[in-house]
Amino acid sequence: MTKINTTLTKNPKNLPPSDKLGFGQYFTDHMFVAKYREGQGWYDAEILPYSPLALDPAASVFHYGQALFEGMKAFRQDSGEIVFFRPEFNYDRLCEGAARLCLEAPPKELFMEGLKKLVEADERWIPNGPNTSLYIRPTLIGSEGFLGVRPSHETIFFIILSPVGSYYAEGAKPVRIWAEETYLRAAPGGLGAVKAGANYASSLKAALAARQKGYAQVLWLDVEHQGIEEVGTMNVFFVMDKEIVTPALNGSILAGGTRGSVIQYLKSKNLPIVERKITITEVIEKIKSGELKEAFGTGTAAVVSPIGVIHYQGKDWDINKGETGPLSTQIFTEITSIQRGTKADPFNWITKLK
Amino acid sequence: MTKINTTLTKNPKNLPPSDKLGFGQYFTDHMFVAKYREGQGWYDAEILPYSPLALDPAASVFHYGQALFEGMKAFRQDSGEIVFFRPEFNYDRLCEGAARLCLEAPPKELFMEGLKKLVEADERWIPNGPNTSLYIRPTLIGSEGFLGVRPSHETIFFIILSPVGSYYAEGAKPVRIWAEETYLRAAPGGLGAVKAGANYASSLKAALAARQKGYAQVLWLDVEHQGIEEVGTMNVFFVMDKEIVTPALNGSILAGGTRGSVIQYLKSKNLPIVERKITITEVIEKIKSGELKEAFGTGTAAVVSPIGVIHYQGKDWDINKGETGPLSTQIFTEITSIQRGTKADPFNWITKLK
Repeated sequence: MTKINTTLTKNPKNLPPSDKLGFGQYFTDHMFVAKYREGQGWYDAEILPYSPLALDPAASVFHYGQALFEGMKAFRQDSGEIVFFRPEFNYDRLCEGAARLCLEAPPKELFMEGLKKLVEADERWIPNGPNTSLYIRPTLIGSEGFLGVRPSHETIFFIILSPVGSYYAEGAKPVRIWAEETYLRAAPGGLGAVKAGANYASSLKAALAARQKGYAQVLWLDVEHQGIEEVGTMNVFFVMDKEIVTPALNGSILAGGTRGSVIQYLKSKNLPIVERKITITEVIEKIKSGELKEAFGTGTAAVVSPIGVIHYQGKDWDINKGETGPLSTQIFTEITSIQRGTKADPFNWITKLK
Repeated sequence: MTKINTTLTKNPKNLPPSDKLGFGQYFTDHMFVAKYREGQGWYDAEILPYSPLALDPAASVFHYGQALFEGMKAFRQDSGEIVFFRPEFNYDRLCEGAARLCLEAPPKELFMEGLKKLVEADERWIPNGPNTSLYIRPTLIGSEGFLGVRPSHETIFFIILSPVGSYYAEGAKPVRIWAEETYLRAAPGGLGAVKAGANYASSLKAALAARQKGYAQVLWLDVEHQGIEEVGTMNVFFVMDKEIVTPALNGSILAGGTRGSVIQYLKSKNLPIVERKITITEVIEKIKSGELKEAFGTGTAAVVSPIGVIHYQGKDWDINKGETGPLSTQIFTEITSIQRGTKADPFNWITKLK
């Protein structure tokens, strides 16, 4: 394997207060960087002090959107053990996304070793307050400098770390969401199924407009403005009388890691989880009829984010009277307890650092 | 206006041979960079030696696709005069794209002054061989380092320059194109109408697959796999017996500068140019019936690129027996003659450097 060199910082930063971490605002002392060039392979893999990346201004990430990332977490369990949550899932998804974006994915060993060495170097940064964790951001970018439109022959893989608290300033309070009929996140044949920066580029304006109208997130619909796709940067679940529905993966929806964990957990409890197409019309009808009991988003950052209100075509529709429902609470508690090691891990989700 | 500082290189590069420029492979001695921060405005505007950009690894361009560019050209006319082709058009389009991507556009004066000072500094790089020019790449990227999904509060605007020859290695030879039914470039409500890196990210894999099958470019269809959108990174025109058709701007098609110039030129000649929806089914039918005489792509890089073959659903369809048609030649000659100053400019397309 490509050797990983380590250069530790001579100027370690002060740790931020663990009750004011927010999300993605603080970065640790170090980062992992490795480079790839066609014909040469991976080279210059290193742990080094967190510092700016120097890139040719003609690099394809600046012009042709070759940018892909993963989001994952490490935890300091009460026993003192440092653990990762499903790192293999993130590695596999990074590989799928790299193929779609014509970027080179790092070998699995390089990914895992870089990740472990980096977290070891920054172990003191892993917070242990309630709902805190070390957020991990592996990223692939096209770095070759050229302007003809074609895939870059060079890739940079890097990992940065950020100690985080709750994703939402509101905490676990249910969010108000806006069913979006003007802007589109992704379409079939596009990049929606991979964690490409391009999907987020399209979403920023709609999210900003929703926030200005008082809604925390956008409920993304498909090209026909009917099928429900995702909520903000999360997958979405609807709890009904007879089934729990999450939109089936259709090529434009991201296969979220937490989405998979929630499905696995619900199945283990023999709860009627169904992956199928669900439209905004059906959701509104089932709110009207009282059949829709709860709705929530799932993602690495927030884990579970209950939905209190859906705005659709000029009207706010309350879900569960705007309160967090029992299943949202149960799933959040279950997954975070496994992450923190206060409950056993029957799903083999946890990987120890050492 | 923000003052522009200039630091000239002490190590000027050797000029590349003007008959081997290709496209976007060589970069000049200098670049223009200016920075923006919310609450502070634009600052640190400078001409400096071409060099790597140093960016926080959490910069939004690496994660959330905030990247937008323009493509334009300067020419060395036979009189020795240095001219730009429609720079105001590119400035206006950059502003529209910035609004869509939640980036800050530079003030017009900063854009124009930065452009002029940079081209002056690198004047010796402007080639004057046949079909050569100085390609100009103004670029906007989100540079703030954070990981919560929201627009960057910081923007970097930079311009780089590349002396170029013909875009296609084939020269003006008609290209073979592949009508794409799996991958999508853009959809309504997305980013297709702006020059976002995200659109290109989605297109790379399809273009690569097409090239591997022997086709130079992809013919992009809409979400229904019927409406014709663009060809590769160009707009497209179809010359029929009674009309010349280019797809109407529908929100997912880029309003190309050359597209606009071609429409303006055709109108000035009283030729029946029509902007309307046109489907792949109609195009194939009109090839069969003999009504379709010519087809060509238009863009800044290639100006006019004749289409010799369209592949659709397993079959190659020749256009004009695979030869360059008379209208393609006429338009290419007209526009490039105005650019090179060998013909008068009745459209006010040309802006002098000095």
